[in-house]
This record gives sequence, structure tokens and C-alpha cells, in this order.
Amino acid sequence: MKKKEIPRVVVRRLPIYLRALETLLEGGVECISSQELSRQVGFSAAQIRKDFSTIGEYGRLGMGYPVKELAEALRRRLHVDRVWDVALVGVGDLGHALARYQGFAERGFRIALAFDKDPAKVGAKIGNLVVEDSAQLVERIRERGVKIGMIATPAEAAQTVAERLVQAGVRAILNYAPIHLTVPEGVLVEYLDPVIPLQEMTFYLT
Amino acid sequence: MKKKEIPRVVVRRLPIYLRALETLLEGGVECISSQELSRQVGFSAAQIRKDFSTIGEYGRLGMGYPVKELAEALRRRLHVDRVWDVALVGVGDLGHALARYQGFAERGFRIALAFDKDPAKVGAKIGNLVVEDSAQLVERIRERGVKIGMIATPAEAAQTVAERLVQAGVRAILNYAPIHLTVPEGVLVEYLDPVIPLQEMTFYLT
Repeated sequence: MKKKEIPRVVVRRLPIYLRALETLLEGGVECISSQELSRQVGFSAAQIRKDFSTIGEYGRLGMGYPVKELAEALRRRLHVDRVWDVALVGVGDLGHALARYQGFAERGFRIALAFDKDPAKVGAKIGNLVVEDSAQLVERIRERGVKIGMIATPAEAAQTVAERLVQAGVRAILNYAPIHLTVPEGVLVEYLDPVIPLQEMTFYLT
Repeated sequence: MKKKEIPRVVVRRLPIYLRALETLLEGGVECISSQELSRQVGFSAAQIRKDFSTIGEYGRLGMGYPVKELAEALRRRLHVDRVWDVALVGVGDLGHALARYQGFAERGFRIALAFDKDPAKVGAKIGNLVVEDSAQLVERIRERGVKIGMIATPAEAAQTVAERLVQAGVRAILNYAPIHLTVPEGVLVEYLDPVIPLQEMTFYLT
């Protein structure tokens, strides 16, 4: 089955399955039933079986799913059987936390470049990273062939930064700035503004 | 129309509309058509008109939607015409960035309590906040009547923290830890693990 035939809603669940399987692997679990996995991911066992059959992965009767093989298959599907370089733009409090976050590396990502326009921040070291001048963003990203950008600038700067990332060849953007980005067709954007899910929840609170 | 009749998919878009309208308001825009708003939010004009009619808000023929009134209506709907106290658990790099984030206050949220189990962090000041000992979490949250929790601990600690938040009366949790949480029926959880959207995007990258 070709990848483009996998519905978007299923694709959205795959990283959640992978995360759960990796945790199970660390705990030494070799096989898991859809019922048990259901408790680890919050989707129903039926949903899980359907999703895995959609991507062509089947459990063994009476044995459940082999955790290691399934995790490897998901890593291949999600293209995280390799490590992706990421360019981070904006090294304020949040950007700094992202640059230091230890959780990226083992899950397929490495912040390879960090930029800020503030001269006071340029040249600063964060672990092995050196913060570079945003003015060099396009050139440096092209040079390194980086395809993923992470925006942690204030809202006012984010659209311009997105345009420069795209100009530099970036094809996927994770945007922490609280603003919708307009990008050319074919460029992917995901959003992580914490107020959005908070307000979704307060809708239901009284 | 009662709130419970508004479909979940529509509820998920409401905070995004509100964010765009607030930006427009700051820019002095008084009226906006669904076509113009479409560019600010990334949903189609038809979708926008349908969503707004679902929540009982209508544009005026030839005038579009009144930005201020619509933003106020959305704030009421989302219950952010008030400020919600939030309890933050885990004051590492990310928790620290969240505690200092200026974007919560004007959008309905205020980090009122911050906890960490590390004695070296307890007592530290972040702006007006003083980091408190996690051991006091249940008691302090009950005392203050806080209903929203934010988890920024390592994955291993997150489930236990979630249980203690629920025990303390928290009804909505924003979880930054890379793990699925099991909570009682009726408690809301939203997830902000950056690797999930990154892997969703790399699925489509080659």
C-alpha cells in the first residue's frame, strides 16, 4: 500500500503509537495486544487493529504485536529511521528550552542550527550549538540542506521568518508563535501554541 | 443553541478564530469578511461561515463580521472572558519558559502556582511566582481552587503527577511530557509533545 493512501487521521496517530511502543521497548516488553496498547495510547483496540492493518502491519494470533518490529516499521513509515536536522529560529526562553531538550535526538531530530536576530544572543553557546545571526539564516540553512524549521520567535516576526525558511529550502515548519502562517502549497506547518488547547478545554469547563 | 451541541471539530477551531480576531483588533480592524478571515486562519470562507452560524454568530450582509463583538462572543463561549489560574508542575527548562511566558495573561490564563520536587528549585522566584515543593501540590491546589494543570516534568513522573492533580480537583491538564496520560472520565487532557507533529510532517517528507 502506498503512503499517500494512508488517511491523514491515521498518520496523526502513528507517532503516538511509536512513542508508546518505544516506552514499552525500554521496559522490555516484547509483545503487546491491541487491548493493552489501547491503555497506552488512549485509542480503542478496534481502532488500533484497523490502523495497523491500514499500514500493513498485523499482529500474530494469540501473541499480539511484536513491539520491536512494529516500532521499526513505524520508524520507517514516519521516516525517523534517520536523524533530521532542524533549524531553530528564536532563542528566547522557549527557544533556549527547545535547544536544550534531550528528547529530540532519540526520536529522529537534532537541532543543528539556531538563529536569533538579537546581537546579544548571537555567538552564545547552548550545549554544542552556537547561536547564529538570523541575517545568515537562508544561506546557512541552504548550505546545510536543512528541511525542517522550528519557529520560536514573537508572533510579529513569525510570518517573515517562515518565508525565509521556505526560501532556504525548508519544507516543514513547527510553529510555536501564536499566529497562523501562510506558506506555499506543499510546505507543511504544524502549530504548538499552548493557549489553543487550553481554550479548547476551558470551553468545556464551567 | 446549547454548547454541548457544538461539534468537537468546531470547538477546536474556535480558539484559532479568537486568536486571529484579537490580532485584527490590535491592528484596528473593525469588520472582516469570511474571505479575509480565511487568510488569517487557514480554513475556507465557507467553513468559517458555517462555524460561526453553528455558534449563532452571523455576519452582516455586505459588512462582514464585526471583529470586536465576535471576539467577545468567542471569549464568552470559550470561557476566557475571565482569567483561569493554572498550576504548573515541573520547572526545568521548559517549565521555566512557560512560567515566564507573557502570552498567557491576555488570553485567559495565569500561572498561579509552580511546583518542582527538586529541593534546589523549591523557593526559587520566577517573576512573581515562587516555586513550591511538589509534596504540597494537592493541598495548595485545593486551597487555591485551581482547575487547570500544566505538566512539564519528565515522562516517568507525568502519570503520577496527573493523578495528584486530579486528586487536587484539577479538571483540565495540558501535558508537555511525552507520554499518554490515563485520567478519570470527565478530566480533559491535551498534549503538546513537539516530536508528535514533527513525525507527522516527516511522514510526508522524503
